[in-house]
Amino acid sequence: MSASPLKHNTYFDGQVQSIGFERHGRRASVGVIAPGEYHFGTEAPERMTILSGELAAKPEGGSWSQYPAGTVFEVAGKSGFDVRADRACAYLCEFL
Amino acid sequence: MSASPLKHNTYFDGQVQSIGFERHGRRASVGVIAPGEYHFGTEAPERMTILSGELAAKPEGGSWSQYPAGTVFEVAGKSGFDVRADRACAYLCEFL
Repeated sequence: MSASPLKHNTYFDGQVQSIGFERHGRRASVGVIAPGEYHFGTEAPERMTILSGELAAKPEGGSWSQYPAGTVFEVAGKSGFDVRADRACAYLCEFL
Repeated sequence: MSASPLKHNTYFDGQVQSIGFERHGRRASVGVIAPGEYHFGTEAPERMTILSGELAAKPEGGSWSQYPAGTVFEVAGKSGFDVRADRACAYLCEFL
């Protein structure tokens, strides 16, 4: 397992989980958000692409927007955002 | 962790990992395939959508085809397929 270039991440008691990987020196992850509301902090800026389901997201100081599958939003670095899923929602997160 | 509706799956010593979830009673997973060649068997038919990177795939008795990000292929149930990734490749697998 230690030789795998993939990394399993788990947050909020397993309610959000992702698999991290690297492509051309850039980090990314694919993951799933179980129903609920969660807050994430960012170090690097992130681009979130919704793959399956729908996600509500609110950047720090901003307001809630709804993102169905196929849509994308970006989050500033050294910041944070809230997300809310009514059903399981799969995403691709790219670190910019 | 035990209450999470998400399931972390790991195959081939962690070289392929996925997060399984359910939406509207249908099972799906998002995952990443580290560089290498792997064989998977299927129970249910599967639809594979390539999210990031590129994947070569060969159904049982078929020939290799190349699937870049954004493309899709389906695999018959009670069957199997080979995949080959030159770099990390992220996918969405939907059980049909």
